[in-house]
Amino acid sequence: MAELSATTGLAVATIKYYLREGLLSPGRPIGRNQAEYGPEHVRRLRLVRALIDYGGLGIADIRDLIARLDDPGVGLYGLAGLAQKSVTEREEARPGPHRERARRIVAEVMERKGWQDSAANPAVGTLVGVVAVLEELGLREISAVLGDYADAAEGIARVDLGVVGTAGDRERAVEIVALGTRLGDAIVVSWRRVAQEHLTTRTLNP
Amino acid sequence: MAELSATTGLAVATIKYYLREGLLSPGRPIGRNQAEYGPEHVRRLRLVRALIDYGGLGIADIRDLIARLDDPGVGLYGLAGLAQKSVTEREEARPGPHRERARRIVAEVMERKGWQDSAANPAVGTLVGVVAVLEELGLREISAVLGDYADAAEGIARVDLGVVGTAGDRERAVEIVALGTRLGDAIVVSWRRVAQEHLTTRTLNP
Repeated sequence: MAELSATTGLAVATIKYYLREGLLSPGRPIGRNQAEYGPEHVRRLRLVRALIDYGGLGIADIRDLIARLDDPGVGLYGLAGLAQKSVTEREEARPGPHRERARRIVAEVMERKGWQDSAANPAVGTLVGVVAVLEELGLREISAVLGDYADAAEGIARVDLGVVGTAGDRERAVEIVALGTRLGDAIVVSWRRVAQEHLTTRTLNP
Repeated sequence: MAELSATTGLAVATIKYYLREGLLSPGRPIGRNQAEYGPEHVRRLRLVRALIDYGGLGIADIRDLIARLDDPGVGLYGLAGLAQKSVTEREEARPGPHRERARRIVAEVMERKGWQDSAANPAVGTLVGVVAVLEELGLREISAVLGDYADAAEGIARVDLGVVGTAGDRERAVEIVALGTRLGDAIVVSWRRVAQEHLTTRTLNP
């Protein structure tokens, strides 16, 4: 345990807490008060810390995700989907006429794209919320191109799936999705601003 | 003033505060203690509130933006660029070998894209920070496709610029950029998750 703490840089009390919460499997007992931990424990601890620090997940979400990770009945892409949903927060729209209009706008785009409106995907709820705000602010120019944004975002998702496809194993796939989702958001929105600047400058000085 | 407060739903004290801070131009004096406000004041107040509520801007940023808005020497796209930078927060990477590597990775992509590394664009600093974290976490699969993300994000920026091009006037352009930047981020990252789910499901059940 002292060695595990030294290797991972985590306090013994923290590691004991993760053991109690079921985020880490117990070591192999080798004495009355000693247990042996292997590289799989170091790796799991690293995943747990990364999920907390960069995925923004709570202990209950991580426990749930790790249970699926250790369940051979859940396939690689199924696992990736679960990891993605755990790091996605749902933001609901306030009830009202804007929400109803927003629902229709989002549903129309999804139908055109042939995307299923899975009630389980919190991102659809967030989209309805954002479009409702746009409608409320009278920014219909933006709602009007919602489908164009969907086309562009599909290109991003293709890159994402390509990266998950390179994952050597399940633990790595969860790591890539859980960390890559939020960090990937930051990459995409930052490139968006850099590209905006480039395109704007070119428009000003053709 | 009482009428302006009733029309906009803002407290008189709030409107007086915006006047003092220079976010709103004074009304036309029509008596000792009275001034006349027009539709341009209502519109400006609406913009200020939207910048605070949805753009996440502070009073100083808004004052700066409004000064440029009222400066005819600043063109429409130049104004859009300023609005975009005001709503973009810079997140710096911690110094170290990961940051140096991240700088090189980001610079290589920008060179390939023909994008200028404008030190004024905070998004470039954020990108370096995110890539440094990926390098630190050993998620090189993601840094490796940074250029693919840039290509996809360029598609989003094209949609953005199309929307700004439809703005009837300068005030509208600032509104679209300052609100559309953050709300647009939420749209893009939400569509990304919906598209991921669609592509994953298709991979599982071809």
